[in-house]
Amino acid sequence: MILEIAQIDVKPGAEAEFEAAVAKAAPLFKRAKGCTGMVLQHSHEKPQRYRLFVQWATLENHTVDFRESADFQEWRKLVGPFFATPPEVEHVKEVLKGF
Amino acid sequence: MILEIAQIDVKPGAEAEFEAAVAKAAPLFKRAKGCTGMVLQHSHEKPQRYRLFVQWATLENHTVDFRESADFQEWRKLVGPFFATPPEVEHVKEVLKGF
Repeated sequence: MILEIAQIDVKPGAEAEFEAAVAKAAPLFKRAKGCTGMVLQHSHEKPQRYRLFVQWATLENHTVDFRESADFQEWRKLVGPFFATPPEVEHVKEVLKGF
Repeated sequence: MILEIAQIDVKPGAEAEFEAAVAKAAPLFKRAKGCTGMVLQHSHEKPQRYRLFVQWATLENHTVDFRESADFQEWRKLVGPFFATPPEVEHVKEVLKGF
């Protein structure tokens, strides 16, 4: 299990439209191979910043299966117009569950 | 409910000791006012990078109650020696649960 964290800065004033576009795109992730969850987090410190958390069974389910799919193009078509800059993507793995 | 994301870069080779120190520090968070969860995530792309996720009932439970407590000093005493740079802390709030 791996968590994709995509840091997304949207254009000023595009917050509501971006959030609506992500909601519309949820089914693309839901049907993606190995994708087990997707939530959108909004930064408190920087109102134009979001972090999209996507859970994948394996790294390749994201970097290969999803990114090379037609659904990835559809995802970018839906949300790309609201990006202020290209998203910064990182993958993390839980190494410790405190509680 | 707010999620604290602390990006922590540790000194080269300090990974195992840092992880052990975080495990040791878990009770400090568990007894902190409004703290409901804590997990440590390890970056796939940058082996020296971690992201500590801490769930708080309110922002102030972290920024005021915890940071001004003796337990915060204890936390820093445990993990501070392994930091390569000061952690970058951000707070996010879930605005959309895709699934």
